[in-house]
Amino acid sequence: MNDALKIFKIGGGIIDEPAQLRVFLRELSRVPGPKVLVHGGGKGASDMLRALGIAPQLVDGRRITDAATLDIVTMFYAGKTNKQIVAGLQREGVNALGLSGADGNLIRAQKRPVTEVDYGFVGDLTEAGINTGLLRQLLGAGLLPVCCAITHDGQGQLLNTNADTIASTLARALAPHYRVALHYCFEKDGVLLDVNDPASVLPRLTPGQYQELKASGAIAAGMLPKLDNAFAALAAGVEQVVIENALNINETTKTVLCPS
Amino acid sequence: MNDALKIFKIGGGIIDEPAQLRVFLRELSRVPGPKVLVHGGGKGASDMLRALGIAPQLVDGRRITDAATLDIVTMFYAGKTNKQIVAGLQREGVNALGLSGADGNLIRAQKRPVTEVDYGFVGDLTEAGINTGLLRQLLGAGLLPVCCAITHDGQGQLLNTNADTIASTLARALAPHYRVALHYCFEKDGVLLDVNDPASVLPRLTPGQYQELKASGAIAAGMLPKLDNAFAALAAGVEQVVIENALNINETTKTVLCPS
Repeated sequence: MNDALKIFKIGGGIIDEPAQLRVFLRELSRVPGPKVLVHGGGKGASDMLRALGIAPQLVDGRRITDAATLDIVTMFYAGKTNKQIVAGLQREGVNALGLSGADGNLIRAQKRPVTEVDYGFVGDLTEAGINTGLLRQLLGAGLLPVCCAITHDGQGQLLNTNADTIASTLARALAPHYRVALHYCFEKDGVLLDVNDPASVLPRLTPGQYQELKASGAIAAGMLPKLDNAFAALAAGVEQVVIENALNINETTKTVLCPS
Repeated sequence: MNDALKIFKIGGGIIDEPAQLRVFLRELSRVPGPKVLVHGGGKGASDMLRALGIAPQLVDGRRITDAATLDIVTMFYAGKTNKQIVAGLQREGVNALGLSGADGNLIRAQKRPVTEVDYGFVGDLTEAGINTGLLRQLLGAGLLPVCCAITHDGQGQLLNTNADTIASTLARALAPHYRVALHYCFEKDGVLLDVNDPASVLPRLTPGQYQELKASGAIAAGMLPKLDNAFAALAAGVEQVVIENALNINETTKTVLCPS
């Protein structure tokens, strides 16, 4: 029987709130067993781009990563945010170690091909690009890897990569080696049956139930890509996906997605 | 007999010149055996502070690291510079892994006490603050640790720390475990007998010769702190200190400092 491994993903909302981030890191230090943390970036990078007079370029709501933008997001994600999280976990007695995808060749991605849109220095990835051996060594040494959303192409180029995708790809790549639970942490307590009622958290969701709720339009549209992604991870061997509040990860209120 | 270990230190000059940095990284990839790289920061952090309207505060030529400055130097040193170096080494086929002092609790420092001057978020360190176990694990796994000049205090605070000091402190802390050679790489070929004659490189320098040359005023004043520091490392068990050109580390022209 493989060991259990929990992969937590946090997003920009909590990174922008130091007091909330500290609550999350303290709660994370109380979660037993081996863990990996994946984090996105907050609005700091956008604020700095603006302060430097670099206008964000968006196509259909997705940022174009030109060279100047890549520099700034690398500074924020791999520098400030990653090191503040690592130092914050060390404060809680957790031996965290921060990584970009270039470090130890952890995540090798491909620059997204230019089609109608040139997204610039953006990386797409597959499980084959994950250096699971390094992660297993670090976890075996009692470390908590903290992964930011910067990858590389192996040819010296850093690439900006979606943090949700990194978390689910890590989970899929590690599924042959661990019983992986993937925890998406955000500002709500889980998947809500009624988006206006924070108490309407679904405790459990199977693919069948999800299809029914999707068809009836009960689940908020914004949750659909995350849930599609989550069920794809379950189908690919991840044991469990949990959708929960970043401030309450040790509470029982959450949505657990199960393969059946 | 302990294994050999080479610790290389590069400074801001080469970091500001991408083409030169690439030459250094390629040459570094050709150096056999286990290695550690320590890097300072270039002028990018100062440029950005200026662009953001944050005036550098200097006392006796030393920067005061206030909270805003710490954020920027963390972004540059631990983010942009560290990850560009790591990605550049990966391109050369070297499995580099970037670290701040917070990562894996690699370097725990003390915030410099406030006396007549408050240097702000600056860290002072001793060999006791170095996690030699982590470095030995990473080196044993075939990785090349790339250390930036950001440390932490273990209580969640990141600290700006002198890169020369980090390199010599790492060398001293690792001396019981390896035959350590500490390589200070800069823009000259070594210690010059005549600062105006680039060909006047001293091939070898013992403490006795150094004291004679120091007394006669032959060595450039700017080299004295570096050399004092280097001989202190030799006295503390480091096998060899090398002063050499960052662009020519595999050439034979260099100054080798020996204990006797």
